[in-house]
Amino acid sequence: MSFVDVIVRKRDGHPLSRAQIDEFVSGILDDTIPDYQASALLMAIVIRGMNPEETSWLTDAMVRSGERVDLSDIPGIKVGKHSTGGVGDKVSIVLAPAAAACGVIVPKMSGRGLGHTGGTLDKLESIPGFRVNLSTEEFKAALRDVGAAIVGQTASLAPADKVLYALRDVTGTVESIPLVASSIMSKKLAEGSDALVLDVKCGDGAFMKNEAEAHAVAAAMVTIATRAGIRAEAFITDMEAPLGCAIGNALEIRECLQTLRGGGPPDLAAMVTRFAARMVVLGGVEQDQAAAVARVETAIASGRALETFARMVQRQGGDPRIVDRPDLLAAAPSRDVIHANRAGVIDRMRAGLLGRASHALGAGRSEVGESIDHAVGLVVLARRGDRVEAGQPLIEIHHRDGRGLETARALCEAAVAIADQASPIRPKFLGEIRAS
Amino acid sequence: MSFVDVIVRKRDGHPLSRAQIDEFVSGILDDTIPDYQASALLMAIVIRGMNPEETSWLTDAMVRSGERVDLSDIPGIKVGKHSTGGVGDKVSIVLAPAAAACGVIVPKMSGRGLGHTGGTLDKLESIPGFRVNLSTEEFKAALRDVGAAIVGQTASLAPADKVLYALRDVTGTVESIPLVASSIMSKKLAEGSDALVLDVKCGDGAFMKNEAEAHAVAAAMVTIATRAGIRAEAFITDMEAPLGCAIGNALEIRECLQTLRGGGPPDLAAMVTRFAARMVVLGGVEQDQAAAVARVETAIASGRALETFARMVQRQGGDPRIVDRPDLLAAAPSRDVIHANRAGVIDRMRAGLLGRASHALGAGRSEVGESIDHAVGLVVLARRGDRVEAGQPLIEIHHRDGRGLETARALCEAAVAIADQASPIRPKFLGEIRAS
Repeated sequence: MSFVDVIVRKRDGHPLSRAQIDEFVSGILDDTIPDYQASALLMAIVIRGMNPEETSWLTDAMVRSGERVDLSDIPGIKVGKHSTGGVGDKVSIVLAPAAAACGVIVPKMSGRGLGHTGGTLDKLESIPGFRVNLSTEEFKAALRDVGAAIVGQTASLAPADKVLYALRDVTGTVESIPLVASSIMSKKLAEGSDALVLDVKCGDGAFMKNEAEAHAVAAAMVTIATRAGIRAEAFITDMEAPLGCAIGNALEIRECLQTLRGGGPPDLAAMVTRFAARMVVLGGVEQDQAAAVARVETAIASGRALETFARMVQRQGGDPRIVDRPDLLAAAPSRDVIHANRAGVIDRMRAGLLGRASHALGAGRSEVGESIDHAVGLVVLARRGDRVEAGQPLIEIHHRDGRGLETARALCEAAVAIADQASPIRPKFLGEIRAS
Repeated sequence: MSFVDVIVRKRDGHPLSRAQIDEFVSGILDDTIPDYQASALLMAIVIRGMNPEETSWLTDAMVRSGERVDLSDIPGIKVGKHSTGGVGDKVSIVLAPAAAACGVIVPKMSGRGLGHTGGTLDKLESIPGFRVNLSTEEFKAALRDVGAAIVGQTASLAPADKVLYALRDVTGTVESIPLVASSIMSKKLAEGSDALVLDVKCGDGAFMKNEAEAHAVAAAMVTIATRAGIRAEAFITDMEAPLGCAIGNALEIRECLQTLRGGGPPDLAAMVTRFAARMVVLGGVEQDQAAAVARVETAIASGRALETFARMVQRQGGDPRIVDRPDLLAAAPSRDVIHANRAGVIDRMRAGLLGRASHALGAGRSEVGESIDHAVGLVVLARRGDRVEAGQPLIEIHHRDGRGLETARALCEAAVAIADQASPIRPKFLGEIRAS
């Protein structure tokens, strides 16, 4: 059977066999299948879909295209966490040490990626000296010592996914539930965790705008994990407004420190507690949800979460003094403020536009390898549902000598809507999917 | 708008604008749109379709990608003819001189193509000396003198179609009504005829197996022509069994000569008369269908059609003596015969398998530029509906020293089905589409 016949099968709406999917994945990696055939098949997959079996086979083939981290010689249940990403999403940075402080092993790998704001790795790199590129041995040693480590994915994980994603990006074939789910899960499965907590964000500031799609991706990811023998739970969470108040790398680390001290914005703290509690259950530390929540709350209240974070920072080469002295983090030289143009209730605080504003200031990157400014960003001072007076400060802009300020101001102004009456706000937690 | 957005529009089922289609066609020709983007868009077009407006724009953009033959300085209405091709389809070779003998100008251009058996150009080249590669000036001079000429399409006609077709061929994106119709029509419109008779074949021996699809392609082609200001009529004709009895280049020229003399297989003669009559009407020679048929019948009965053929052959460098001496055509040194394995009625005589048998003998080519054997082929001795005795000769195999004979015998045997009772035979003419 020639590869054109494989394309035609999917074009005509038929499922592919495991062998055909294996041929596809190995063929794009060793270049025996040309890009123009791969992109035709990708488009057919986007429009015709893939069933759960095909999606699992695709994921597995991408996992097998590279190395798989072997964490089996580290005692305990390793529980990973992944978020599809959003504006102000700093959950992992608080969550990993909080769960580790409860006795869970948290091997967290992040992709570098592009985006409105920096990613988890960029945020951590705003800590002086922090290294995200640990070798596998260093990573495992950190996990043994601290219980948590957050590092960059190595290029050897699921290399087929990288090739496929690059092609999808330029051929209009990104938006596909099986392709999105298998792309994420190929890397997660290669990371070698025993269990996973997945956060699928949806709304203005997320990759997925649509709640139904987010549910579908979450369900597909849990199914892939289950078929691969990994326990996984997925949450669908709101990303209409930013998570927490800080957007921008060092600003977000400051907010993480507040949250690890038991303060921080309530939405961020609630999300950390909920995810950490599930990791405590999946990690076998507690059987009961209420006990798991109590354990997490204690870990934070007792200072053990913050202490674990300090050890994680130190173990990865960062300056642990920042824990007590956030002033050692980079700070932008200049500030500007967006004020309320009328009195009323904050009706919208659109995450997507705020993310673009932060990007305009220099906090994110448009191209791989571009450098970013760790100091700049935004701090949201008034949140959805808050009643404000005309002229009240709404958003603080941290900028470097006016770079991107005009654009950022315009985007921030567009992001805010003030109404006479508070309209209903969608809850942060929109759904939860566990393997049946 | 980036080209990815164009792909996404079609992926999501929206129509493309004229400017987007123009960008696509010029981009594939000047290589500013990479193949992997073009193939993703092609797959989206195959699955999502194109409306008549988009299909016309695509055709027009492909016409404008190259030269357009200007026949305006040749007096009279120029009427072209095109067939989607079938086994034993030699209609054009009889039709062009027959219509020209009635006073129609018939500028016939053919593609070389690949196929089971040789194409029209290969059949004509079995006439010693016959040249199909006339310059435009030679072509026009032949049209002025003889009224008919059959030549190869030059590479300058619709070059974008060639690039697109090559890509479609390797990406599973051939089967699409708008793409098939626009591909054919881009070349037909570039040939500069004022009117067109189109023969869309369907069945075992044709590109289109399905009658509904053939109707849809025929309708799309007529719509494209109408929007381009060209009068066109399309016929949907059966290709379950071969057309006429001869399959193979010189063998088919012999059958053409018989038909031009008023003999020949009835199905072939009927098709020539019907198409030629429509060309006589479209060419403005007769208003009335019955008068047109009478004129065609007279042209053949009087010998003027044969005489026009002889002049066409001579004008294109061929040896006109073949008209009276078919023995000057190549003949295969050896013959073999397939016999009926039982008594009964011929129920099937599958054109596709007979085409492959002829190909196995050397009458067709698998790759561009391959040489073919003009002498070999098949002659069908008993046709669908005929009552035969066991052992009666059914198919004569003309081969060269046994080359491909084993395969050809097996295919011929598989092509024939003999039943107790005659089952209904689909008529040759399945439908007709004229611009409304």
